[in-house]
Formats: sequence, C-alpha cells, structure tokens
Amino acid sequence: MENIDKKYMRRCLELAEHGRGAVSPNPLVGCVIVKDDKIISENYHRIFGGPHAEALAITNSSESVSGATLYVNLEPCCHENKKTPPCVPSIIMNDIKRVVIANVDPNPEVKGKGIKILKEAGIEVVTGVSEKKGKQLNRFFFKYIKSRMPYVTLKIAKSLDGKINDDIGSQTQITGVEANIFVHQQRSYYDAVMVGANTVGIDNPQLTVRHIEGRDPYRIVLDDELISPVESQIFTDGNQASTWLFTRKDSNPEKINSLKKNGVRVIELQTQYDGLLDLKEVLAILGEENISSLFVEGGQRIFSEFIGQKLFDEIIFLSTPKLFGKGLDAVKLTSTIELELVSLDKLGDDIKSVFRKK
Amino acid sequence: MENIDKKYMRRCLELAEHGRGAVSPNPLVGCVIVKDDKIISENYHRIFGGPHAEALAITNSSESVSGATLYVNLEPCCHENKKTPPCVPSIIMNDIKRVVIANVDPNPEVKGKGIKILKEAGIEVVTGVSEKKGKQLNRFFFKYIKSRMPYVTLKIAKSLDGKINDDIGSQTQITGVEANIFVHQQRSYYDAVMVGANTVGIDNPQLTVRHIEGRDPYRIVLDDELISPVESQIFTDGNQASTWLFTRKDSNPEKINSLKKNGVRVIELQTQYDGLLDLKEVLAILGEENISSLFVEGGQRIFSEFIGQKLFDEIIFLSTPKLFGKGLDAVKLTSTIELELVSLDKLGDDIKSVFRKK
Repeated sequence: MENIDKKYMRRCLELAEHGRGAVSPNPLVGCVIVKDDKIISENYHRIFGGPHAEALAITNSSESVSGATLYVNLEPCCHENKKTPPCVPSIIMNDIKRVVIANVDPNPEVKGKGIKILKEAGIEVVTGVSEKKGKQLNRFFFKYIKSRMPYVTLKIAKSLDGKINDDIGSQTQITGVEANIFVHQQRSYYDAVMVGANTVGIDNPQLTVRHIEGRDPYRIVLDDELISPVESQIFTDGNQASTWLFTRKDSNPEKINSLKKNGVRVIELQTQYDGLLDLKEVLAILGEENISSLFVEGGQRIFSEFIGQKLFDEIIFLSTPKLFGKGLDAVKLTSTIELELVSLDKLGDDIKSVFRKK
Repeated sequence: MENIDKKYMRRCLELAEHGRGAVSPNPLVGCVIVKDDKIISENYHRIFGGPHAEALAITNSSESVSGATLYVNLEPCCHENKKTPPCVPSIIMNDIKRVVIANVDPNPEVKGKGIKILKEAGIEVVTGVSEKKGKQLNRFFFKYIKSRMPYVTLKIAKSLDGKINDDIGSQTQITGVEANIFVHQQRSYYDAVMVGANTVGIDNPQLTVRHIEGRDPYRIVLDDELISPVESQIFTDGNQASTWLFTRKDSNPEKINSLKKNGVRVIELQTQYDGLLDLKEVLAILGEENISSLFVEGGQRIFSEFIGQKLFDEIIFLSTPKLFGKGLDAVKLTSTIELELVSLDKLGDDIKSVFRKK
C-alpha cells in the first residue's frame, strides 16, 4: 500500500511545484483523486487567494469522486476566516472515503484539526507519506508560518577558490548563461531579493526577472550609511515601487527624499552597537510585510553578516570552473560555519551546490 | 558491430585499471579474447616488467583462440628491446582473425608499426574504439611518453570558500574519513607525492599509504631555502630511502649532510631569477628518474607555482562543507586560470571535483 501512496503523493508534489512564485505566502499544494488505482482528477493551488488544490480537483473531476482516495501534500483546511471556503467539509460532503496527506498544516488554525474532523466523519486518514519531500517543497511556508520571518537563501556566485570577483572593487561576470537563467528563475520564486549598498554601487544590478517568464520580486537594499548612488537602476528603472531601502535613522535626509520621490520605500532603523542595521529586525519587518522568502545576492558584507549571525536557511553556490587567485573573498567570518549538502549538479560549465544550515 | 566492440573494450579498460600503481611507468593494459560473442579469456598487465595483457590472455585461454577477436586498449607491441617478448608475432601465430584497439601506442618504437604488421598478416584491425576513455585511463603514460615529464595532479583540500586552513600557520584537518582514504588510494597510484617546505614544517606529514593496501610513492620535498626541520617524519620515519629533497645549490651544507645521513636524497639546483627552484627543471629530473606521475599535496606556494606556470595536468579539489571565512587561500595568482570539469561526486560529507587544465 505504501508504494502506491508514495507514487500518487509524488504526483501531488509535482503538481504543487507549478504554483511556485504565484501562491506565496500560501503553501504549494497539489491534489490527486484516485479511484480503482486510476487518477480521475488532479489539480494544484494556482494563485494566491485562488481556490485550493482539493477544491479544484473535486470540482473538475471527470467522474464522481464518491468512494475515491484523495491525495494532498498538505492537511486540508478547516478554518473559515480566509479567502476561500474550507476544504474539509467539501471532502466529507463529496463522500471521499480515504485521505492521504504528506504534511500536517503547521498553521495554528489548522494543525491537525482538519484531520480530526475528517476522521470523525469516518474517513480513513493517512499522514506522513513523503513527509520530508513535502517539507522541502514548502520550506518557505514552514519557516514563515513558524517564525514569521522569511526563509533566507544566499546565492553566492564564486570562483573555485572562493572569490566573488577577480579584482576588488570591480564587477566580474562570474557564471555562464545556464546559471544566469537559473538565478532569474529563483528570483521569480522568491518574494524578495536583497543586496548590499556596495553591490548596488559596483554592479548596478536590476534584480528583475528577464531571462525567463516570471514575476519580479521586491528588491531590498541594505544600506546603513546610505552610500548607494541615487541614479542606480534599481531606484530609477520604472520598477521603482518595488524597491525598498533599509538605512540608519540618521542617514542623509535629502538623499532619502530624493529616493522617496523616485518611489523607493525607505525604512529607517536604529542601528546596533557597531553602526550596522540589525538583520533580525530587518527580517522581522519583511515578515510583517508578508515577505515569506528572501533571496540574498551579495556582496561580501551581507553574506558575512547573514552567515556569521546564522540568519540564513540555505546557501546556493554557483561555482565557475576558474581560479581567480586574487579578488574579494565570498565571506569573512570569525569562526567556522558547518553546512549540510542538499544537492550537487552541473549547470552548463558551472557547478551548483546547495547547502542547508547545519 | 560498434556496440559489441565498445562493450568488450569497456571490459578491457576495467581489467587494465587493476594494474594501477603496479605497472608504472608502463601503461595500463587489459585484453579480452572473444569467440562467438563469448569471452574465452581475459587478462591484464599486472606488474612492471611482467608479461603483457595479450600474452597472458592468449596463454591462459580455456579454449583455442584460433579465429577469435582480440580486444586490447593499447596497440600491441612489436619491438624487441624490452623485458618481455613482443605481442604482435604471438597474435599472428595463434591465428587471431580480428584485433580491436582503443589507442595507438604513442611510444615512437611502436606507434602504428604493430598495427601495420598485423594488417600485413591478413588480420582485420579496428582502432579508435573508446579512444577517449583509453586516453583518460592511461593519461599518466601518454603525458610521460610524449613529454618525458610526469603527469602532475594537484590535490587541494579546502573549505567551500577556498581556504586550505582556518588559521594561517596552523594545521587543519580539512576532510573526512572517505576523502582521506581516497587520498591514500591516490598516493598508491602515483609514482611520487610532493609537498613544499611549509607543509613539512606545519603538518609534519608522513605521505605514506596507510588507510588502504598499496605501495608507498616516492616523497618529494621542494625546499629552496632548506627550512624543513631535519627531524620531520618524512626524513626520519624509516622510509628514508624514498624521500628526495630539492633545494638551492647554496643551501646550508651541514643541514644537507644531516639529511643525507638519514638517507634522504638531496638534489641541489641553480635557482631562478627570484630565488625559486625552476619547476620545469624539477619535473624534467623526476622524468629522467622514471617518475611518470606526481601527486602534489600542498601548500599554497607550491599550488600557486604549478598553477601560475600552468605546469599541472589535473586538479582534484576535496571540499569540506564548511565556510572558514579566514585562513590561508588555496592559491595566489596574478591572472585567472580556466579549468575544465572532469567529474563531480560526493565523498562522504565532502565534495570531490576533478578538473583538467583548459
């Protein structure tokens, strides 16, 4: 029985993945309805605020779902205070006889309540099928729902010897076409991207999604001393509304005004002991603004702060097959940080290695 | 026909591999004899000076090889001035009707002559089957026979951010058990290992093969200024005969004498413009001494010289899943060096990535 359940759950996870970038901060959910070992309907949560995967699968089934098994990677919802009607009553009403679930919903308003109601209605409920894969799929959602802070991924493009450019203070295009497409795809999956002031000054990046179809993320600049040039693309390229800048309370008010005139949202914070912005505070503010995932693109100082303070969840290294032998180190740390390898792949001529915090 | 030839050639290459570490500076050779699409005999070159793969396969066949196809990854030999009788006459005498070869022997004394004689005897000869794989297998041999210099592999154990220790001047155990076993296996495959004086001083390594069964390589120390402590293990551990030290002609004669007393072979060289030993000269001397492969284990200065002067063939990175954020860079270079990825694997918790010079 387990293998069949895993097979259909795999399909749920595949379907769920299609919603990435569109449903945030909602979870990715796929649903498959099976009768006589045959899929009679399948669907996924397509857009934030839109109908749930279970509702779509039940409504659009080609034949009656009565007596069928419903597979869904996240516990069906039972709470009313949200955009769409709850799925649990619909499952009961439509005479589903068995429900297979990967993950219990960590949302305190659900968290096992949906399962309890299904069981009380006489439905057989199986949980924990492909639980780990489900958690990996919805890692943004799980982090955010529990901590109210975004899931933080650092993307570090580097040479084999760990340099993020080959000449301190100049821009270096590190990786190839495939890696660049991958980065744009990732941007479209995250709610926001972040860079530091030095990266804005040296690279003058757009941080938009261009190499593929996909929605642009919010663009966040950390700039305690407000040294970013006001004429940078990120502040003036017509996507202004989507750029937020965090700076110190005592930063140059005229510069702040001119950024605001361009539509940049400027958030002024008290600084810490050493004049730096408090990253935890920044993440908490982003969380309050429904930013459930953050893609950090550099540079050295930002990477070093996130890593040194252990405020990251994942690091994606894109390593070009070159030795620079000089230039800027990816990170500066006072003590060693251990990571856990998640995946290792070729990406064109480059190497993509993904790690989790250990 | 091609797929069948490739299948049996793959077996030749597998067999040949068994000779690694034992036949150097001879090539790795495997041989398979096939009749009616069935292997009737197979063998490989087992030890330097011992019988060739073809001779062993023909002699030890369970049935008559008359009319059979002989697969061998390297062109059979026809020259007389060596330790064993040539294989070509034996192949003809034993009535083999077809010979399939991966690589023409680059040895000027063979180089197509063996093939020519076989063809003149009416034998069908096919060459170039799995040629690339054959060259990769015998990369030490091909480099050495053509240049009379050893094939040079640099083994760089490092953190993800390219540091070879986490505190300059101290020893850091970088990689885990599996990677260490791999390194000892590699040592047993190479004719010699090399380190610089700083590595001798800081790590005091043995550079022997201990974690697996295998022969110890020669141990080469590059020490222009003769700063290695004479009491280092490498000079005093009872394997003394196998340690060679290259130094400047004007180095401390008393220290040289005390090393020689311990059985260390000291080779004194003129220095270059900047007081460094001439690496090309060192490699030429090693080549003259039948060292066809060299495994370079550090440290920064040696790596940087080999890479900066492009005197390496291959680099094996063993990357531990850690960020040091400080410590010693793997290499210092004045310009970027491009590499070509050969393989990418997990090795315990570490990552093994192998590159060729581009």
